Amino acid sequence: MALAKKPVTGMKDILPEEMQIRDYVIGIIKETYRNFGFTPIETPCMENIANLSSKQGGENEKLIFKVLKRGEKLKLEAAETEAELVDMGLRYDLTLPLARFYSNNANNLPSPFKALQIGSVWRADRPQRGRYRQFTQCDIDILGEPSNLAEIELILATTETLGRIGFEKFEIRINERRVLKAMAAYSGFAEESNDEVFIILDKMDKIGLDGVAEELRKNGFEKEAIDRYLALFQRVEGEADGVKAVSVLADTLGEYLEDSVRISLQEIIECVEQTKTADFKMVFDPTLVRGMGYYTGTIFEIAIPEFGGSCGGGGRYDKMIGNFTGNNVPACGFSIGFERIILLLLEKGFQIPGSPRKTAYLVEKNYPAEKLCDVLKQAQEARKCGRQILVARMNKNKKFQKEKLTAEGYTEFLEFFNR
Amino acid sequence: MALAKKPVTGMKDILPEEMQIRDYVIGIIKETYRNFGFTPIETPCMENIANLSSKQGGENEKLIFKVLKRGEKLKLEAAETEAELVDMGLRYDLTLPLARFYSNNANNLPSPFKALQIGSVWRADRPQRGRYRQFTQCDIDILGEPSNLAEIELILATTETLGRIGFEKFEIRINERRVLKAMAAYSGFAEESNDEVFIILDKMDKIGLDGVAEELRKNGFEKEAIDRYLALFQRVEGEADGVKAVSVLADTLGEYLEDSVRISLQEIIECVEQTKTADFKMVFDPTLVRGMGYYTGTIFEIAIPEFGGSCGGGGRYDKMIGNFTGNNVPACGFSIGFERIILLLLEKGFQIPGSPRKTAYLVEKNYPAEKLCDVLKQAQEARKCGRQILVARMNKNKKFQKEKLTAEGYTEFLEFFNR
Repeated sequence: MALAKKPVTGMKDILPEEMQIRDYVIGIIKETYRNFGFTPIETPCMENIANLSSKQGGENEKLIFKVLKRGEKLKLEAAETEAELVDMGLRYDLTLPLARFYSNNANNLPSPFKALQIGSVWRADRPQRGRYRQFTQCDIDILGEPSNLAEIELILATTETLGRIGFEKFEIRINERRVLKAMAAYSGFAEESNDEVFIILDKMDKIGLDGVAEELRKNGFEKEAIDRYLALFQRVEGEADGVKAVSVLADTLGEYLEDSVRISLQEIIECVEQTKTADFKMVFDPTLVRGMGYYTGTIFEIAIPEFGGSCGGGGRYDKMIGNFTGNNVPACGFSIGFERIILLLLEKGFQIPGSPRKTAYLVEKNYPAEKLCDVLKQAQEARKCGRQILVARMNKNKKFQKEKLTAEGYTEFLEFFNR
Repeated sequence: MALAKKPVTGMKDILPEEMQIRDYVIGIIKETYRNFGFTPIETPCMENIANLSSKQGGENEKLIFKVLKRGEKLKLEAAETEAELVDMGLRYDLTLPLARFYSNNANNLPSPFKALQIGSVWRADRPQRGRYRQFTQCDIDILGEPSNLAEIELILATTETLGRIGFEKFEIRINERRVLKAMAAYSGFAEESNDEVFIILDKMDKIGLDGVAEELRKNGFEKEAIDRYLALFQRVEGEADGVKAVSVLADTLGEYLEDSVRISLQEIIECVEQTKTADFKMVFDPTLVRGMGYYTGTIFEIAIPEFGGSCGGGGRYDKMIGNFTGNNVPACGFSIGFERIILLLLEKGFQIPGSPRKTAYLVEKNYPAEKLCDVLKQAQEARKCGRQILVARMNKNKKFQKEKLTAEGYTEFLEFFNR
């Protein structure tokens, strides 16, 4: 019986060329974040289905791969609903598992706790080009830090990582959920309609200011509110200095915006600009929404010019851990769009800097065992000096074999014949 | 609603202390195997259920976590069997996915292909101490190399890795499926009973030679065959020199054993002994069986004295890829018992060598933003020199905070007060 050769639908095999770049990037990520005091943790890939379906994950909860119960617990004949058949699911992100992890282990963790997670997540999305049903996420989170020191450290660490990978002239766009709310209230939108307004606002980068206005009108919002709302965005449009832009907006919003929110946003922008190591700019972007419902304060996003759309983002979610423990814990996270970054590097034809010299020792077939031992000794000596040595039998089609190896980065060939 | 804090049954959260050791070991594994010309690859964690249930995996096929079909494909009411409900499963090892990967991608891979895989696998085993339902496997495989150069390179690479992690005075036990068969045939066991005999033989390290004899008797085998069988093992018992032991056994077996098998085993032992870098010994062990049915030739196992039982193993499986492509490809692999090695290191109180100096900057609450910027600048300077700097707010209970950080390896504390 022939077995299926292809990976399961929507998932992919990762070949050596891509894998080496992934490993290189993960190495930089781990080293940089470690220098900022983040410590790696890991949680199981599966979570209880009740946790995954607890309305923390928004749309992602519709995309869960569910795991069948096993043994006596599976009562196939009695089961009338899907829910009776499953007890676990594959995680759709790393944030919910982190909140569970922290609730379970807080006593054994320092406070504040700075976590680094790199791991696979799964979403049963409709398969499409460049988007897979299994992909890697890379998150840092600071739990237990109420002040904006959390935001500053997250942004500094993430941007330094991006800089070390080789990205430059990118932007970190920042906003605050409370700024979004204040702008809506100031304009005259009712609080209940906030979610609806923000979903439309979130399309700004695709449909522009006029498109947003048009869609708000179609959704039946009053012209007066829409006009006031648009005027707000126009007030700060083009103001490149983030601190000034926040001031201009805050002055207009007046008492609609708590002064502490303005101060905190300005401190983050100012402090990051003064201490950053990478070549990027902090941009205040009042149109930034970020979909996840769990954000409670600051939100931010990476914009890399070569790549339309976001390459990662994050924000503050002070109320999620309370769902596990009953007590809220301040929490703030930043997720790098790992798969997008790898895609960009592959498209650029990225070469890993400082790779070791790769040499292939090709040994003629039927080379006698005693002499093979000498070849291996020679290989072992070279490996001791950190060189990468492949010892392989010479194929009949040696030219083809060497071409393949050259494509893999082998630059030297040593051939051994039995003469 | 309070959510479940514990990980799902039989799986575990990995805390920073263990995670740092895991990352360190993975770093050594990747670097060492890379120097031997192995390239990393990755396959999806899920495979088609038909592939997973194709009788390659022996007992493990009973332990598969199965994934529910989604959307219209799930016909809950019409389904009468479990098989109709599921389309995928979580992989129970890395060998079957590798065979599928190779079948799918052989055109884009060099020949021979040296693969390194590090990844999670899942088995719905009865939960027990120190054994988890999700665990990491670490495999190297050489595909397309028919000669014993594959075995030699696999053993050299794996033992160098173990040596660099700090293990010494361990053993690599080696045997051959064809030696096992020849011994059974020579003793007079019928070929059909081979599997039954080998399952009993596999218990040798637990029940001893007498126990094996006793159990063979109970299973109804003839006394004469059993006596001849036991005498074979006694002939080589205590012969420390592997090459000699193979000769002694082969001389006794005579024409029951192909001479090429003897020569190949001796070449492997001889060549590894001459070129090894770690402190270990090659031991010929005619009682070594290794459970998996897919092995076709050489089999080997790591025995570390501090740890009763095997710490990894592997062998040749020349017929698995043919299940996918119809054409067999020579294949040989070695798997390190990653979780057991981590357990051993944790029990030893292993300290990671050469870790960077860790300094915590503790900043008083309400430290003004302008001054916080200066603290962060200082931290950034130190990080540039490769130091690990944690910047955190000072807790009310500073003594407790510092204790926790000390346990995490912080040896220096810099405190910043607003005075």
